[in-house]
Amino acid sequence: MKILKTTKELINYRKSLTCNVGFVPTMGALHQGHISLIKESVQKNNNTIVSIFVNPIQFLAGEDFTSYPNRQKADLKICELAGVDALFMPNTDEIYFENEPILVAPMKQSFILEGYQRPKHFDGVLRVVIKLLNLTKPTNAYFGKKDAQQLFLIQNMVKTLFLDTTIVPCEIIRDENGLALSSRNAYLDENEKLQALNISKSLKIASIEIMRGELHAEKIKEKMKEVLKELEVEYIEITNRKFDKIEKIDLKNCMILVAAKVGKTRLIDNMWI
Amino acid sequence: MKILKTTKELINYRKSLTCNVGFVPTMGALHQGHISLIKESVQKNNNTIVSIFVNPIQFLAGEDFTSYPNRQKADLKICELAGVDALFMPNTDEIYFENEPILVAPMKQSFILEGYQRPKHFDGVLRVVIKLLNLTKPTNAYFGKKDAQQLFLIQNMVKTLFLDTTIVPCEIIRDENGLALSSRNAYLDENEKLQALNISKSLKIASIEIMRGELHAEKIKEKMKEVLKELEVEYIEITNRKFDKIEKIDLKNCMILVAAKVGKTRLIDNMWI
Repeated sequence: MKILKTTKELINYRKSLTCNVGFVPTMGALHQGHISLIKESVQKNNNTIVSIFVNPIQFLAGEDFTSYPNRQKADLKICELAGVDALFMPNTDEIYFENEPILVAPMKQSFILEGYQRPKHFDGVLRVVIKLLNLTKPTNAYFGKKDAQQLFLIQNMVKTLFLDTTIVPCEIIRDENGLALSSRNAYLDENEKLQALNISKSLKIASIEIMRGELHAEKIKEKMKEVLKELEVEYIEITNRKFDKIEKIDLKNCMILVAAKVGKTRLIDNMWI
Repeated sequence: MKILKTTKELINYRKSLTCNVGFVPTMGALHQGHISLIKESVQKNNNTIVSIFVNPIQFLAGEDFTSYPNRQKADLKICELAGVDALFMPNTDEIYFENEPILVAPMKQSFILEGYQRPKHFDGVLRVVIKLLNLTKPTNAYFGKKDAQQLFLIQNMVKTLFLDTTIVPCEIIRDENGLALSSRNAYLDENEKLQALNISKSLKIASIEIMRGELHAEKIKEKMKEVLKELEVEYIEITNRKFDKIEKIDLKNCMILVAAKVGKTRLIDNMWI
């Protein structure tokens, strides 16, 4: 596995590849969620490039940029074992310049939910993703459905700016108790881990309600609130695939999204129906 | 010469090309300035794509978007004779979508000069150029030095977003009297054409002053103002190549830039020293 530290190394490496390239952008602290993306890429492409870059501009002031989990040694081993061909691990000054254009995510889908709680977060995500896609020029790039809004906005950017990459959405990976895997789970103590289970539990309750025939979004949200009552809920929302709020469940085109704080740790989860 | 009307046609055409591709984006109403860019591209690349698209979002309210000169038949002939392989002529709804990310040009170089007079103009330029570059994936893209600030901001975007295209700056083309060619010259009547000559004349006067040993920017600007006194001058500026104002001429790293109105027509010109 090649370790690439500079954009120049990455550009040269990319020029040497002539077949399908898969790309998995990450912020490190790799878990089974990332591994599932990497495995999918390794299986479907001739070459797989993974990036590890904790992108400063997608963190808001006061968020966990400086304390974001760093497990470089384990991450390298994971990538090597998973069959990654090249790992791109740049410093910030390789990626950002003093004067450069800014990307502003489209209002409609970036000021709601995550964007409401974390203004400009998605602008930072899009700006790093366009840079990474331009550097790696992947045939396919893999993103998890857990960050549903991020996935939507990246697909939207690829479509509207005519980037020549297929964005492949990958399923949420959960631990044996149902907790959606996240690098931020590392912040949870044993007690908080138990509390955090209520997030996926609330989604499970919602799906049971829907299976029972309940189609009113508000009633489903009420049931979810009960399950989540001990957490600091930021939002519970039921939307279509374009993130418009809906009142009645559409069984082919709907998402249920939750963000909640467990202690000091902010977690998100969702379910696509 | 292929005529491509949709992005799909362009993407398919581009896929059929395996060698060097040159690209010349234009807003049509082609003149010798454009022809010089096209000739340069045809000479240096295996294939040349020209686009004609009057980009609505780079015009401000009240500017000449709706009256911008349209000479489609002549443009087609010019491209054919110049050896263009494909001409991309999309409608607006091929290029822009209802919800899409916006590019914001870097503050420093986009709020001065042209950007001061035409706020958000460069955001519109960058947004269309990134789309066109992603669609045509050119090895080389050709831009005139007349739009010096546009050229700088596009080079900056290509560098900072890691686009895999070389931006080739091309010299300003002038008529026999020195007037910098521009599609907007079509708005000038005979008398205005004579008045407009004072713009290039002011730059010539500046270069004579510099050759005589005058290095003080303010003194050179005074001389230029005299020449331009009958026009409505928007700015006369002397800057380095990064558009920082300078007080003393640096003979290797300096530009003199003018914008002025002749009647209702706004013209720009510049000289690189």
